[in-house]
Amino acid sequence: MMNSFAFTKMHGCGNDFIVINSFTESLPSDLSSLAQTMCQRRFSVGADQFIILGKAESREANFRMDILNADGSKVEMCGNALRCAAIYARREKLVASDEIKIETMTGISIAQILDNGDVRIAVAIPSTSIEDLALNSEHPLFGTPITAGQYTFPMTGVSVGNPHAVTYVDELELLDLSIIGPLFEHHEIFKNRANIEFVQLVDDHHVKMRVWERGTGETLACGSGACAVGVASILHGVTHSPIVVALKGGDLTIEWAGRGTPVYMSGSATFVFDANWTY
Amino acid sequence: MMNSFAFTKMHGCGNDFIVINSFTESLPSDLSSLAQTMCQRRFSVGADQFIILGKAESREANFRMDILNADGSKVEMCGNALRCAAIYARREKLVASDEIKIETMTGISIAQILDNGDVRIAVAIPSTSIEDLALNSEHPLFGTPITAGQYTFPMTGVSVGNPHAVTYVDELELLDLSIIGPLFEHHEIFKNRANIEFVQLVDDHHVKMRVWERGTGETLACGSGACAVGVASILHGVTHSPIVVALKGGDLTIEWAGRGTPVYMSGSATFVFDANWTY
Repeated sequence: MMNSFAFTKMHGCGNDFIVINSFTESLPSDLSSLAQTMCQRRFSVGADQFIILGKAESREANFRMDILNADGSKVEMCGNALRCAAIYARREKLVASDEIKIETMTGISIAQILDNGDVRIAVAIPSTSIEDLALNSEHPLFGTPITAGQYTFPMTGVSVGNPHAVTYVDELELLDLSIIGPLFEHHEIFKNRANIEFVQLVDDHHVKMRVWERGTGETLACGSGACAVGVASILHGVTHSPIVVALKGGDLTIEWAGRGTPVYMSGSATFVFDANWTY
Repeated sequence: MMNSFAFTKMHGCGNDFIVINSFTESLPSDLSSLAQTMCQRRFSVGADQFIILGKAESREANFRMDILNADGSKVEMCGNALRCAAIYARREKLVASDEIKIETMTGISIAQILDNGDVRIAVAIPSTSIEDLALNSEHPLFGTPITAGQYTFPMTGVSVGNPHAVTYVDELELLDLSIIGPLFEHHEIFKNRANIEFVQLVDDHHVKMRVWERGTGETLACGSGACAVGVASILHGVTHSPIVVALKGGDLTIEWAGRGTPVYMSGSATFVFDANWTY
């Protein structure tokens, strides 16, 4: 006999997800294998990640979100996934309020649905410390020239839970990130490697960026990268909060009130289609 | 008010399609724009092509298949699409028989559903003539050394409606098709350019191939390319019909009884999911 379950395809800035509501749907037991099968592009549904919403362990949270990569491995947290989960949960009436508490492997995240339908998330209290960035250096990175291969860029280090290095350039589109990205990701100053953000200033509240994600390569959108760019740009005084960060996959808005306070990220989450998977 | 229609995602050897039954579903009038929207990967459903099944103009055909590319342009014909359309039509009871007559821009194609669920299609009567291949040469190509850049390959020309050049190599995986492909596609001997197939012999009835498609680049599967490879391999006497051609996206079986007879291609077509599109 054939089994089936309903799933929904969504994306946030081109970061795309298969979303499953385990409150109503029965899934096969091997979720890692299911994620690998369904996330494959061309031969299957195709997605970056696989999200399952279910019962939270904590009574404080509205529900739990588990995230699996296309290779079946577990993902601790993803800002684009949180936005999709929030919008999905409201549509499916898993929550009644506009403030949604989502349990993940890293704790409880609060997502707020804004009047325009976008979702706002408190991401983390950012840090520029040597320890939080795991720098192989006695000094923090703050516009510090770093050389890798034939390239030298002034880099500013920002951790928002994961390590980022932000640099400003004049012509974003001319950069060959496939060459430059790995050189800096693996630079000896980053003990745990780093995500590298290249930023072009537009005006006081608007920047464009491209991101080289640690272990992945250039992507359409990286929420934590956009947060790091917002924080670095405010610390350097080149922009003011709120900052619209234009990524390849869409815009994210970053708000930050300064040291010791959390950085907030807002952006859209989009339904693509509802479907059934038969197995 | 929101409108919606049902669609089905399918693939043949990794060549993926959005299939819509216009006998039952009402579609928006601008199909080119719809195909562009829905075929976009990550931000939408994602597919190589968009297929609409509807009423045939000819009374001989069971139904008509219109194919649109992801860029909204019309496609004359595609063997992988024909296989998917045949399997879909049987599931949706558009036809009762195992022999299905499908009208396309190029005429009526006959698809036969085999006992193992695969689909067999009579593709074309192949030709090796200078005219059909639009060769800039007084001699046909039959193991003829052709040089482009620093590369020389013995090439055999086969037309199955579109022009192909087939060459045999020892180590398929070592070839850098992104460099070699364009050099031969645009070689002056091909007045209308050509699809280039690189083939590694496995045994009398089995070859592996990679294909550089004219105007597209390397793809997972090219049905007409597999036919050209089967015909060339039979003409050279290096394999015998039927030939299993292993492409990156899966296997196709080629049958050919010799000059003046049509070449047949058999392969699978796979349902991925059924879904609804709301607009």
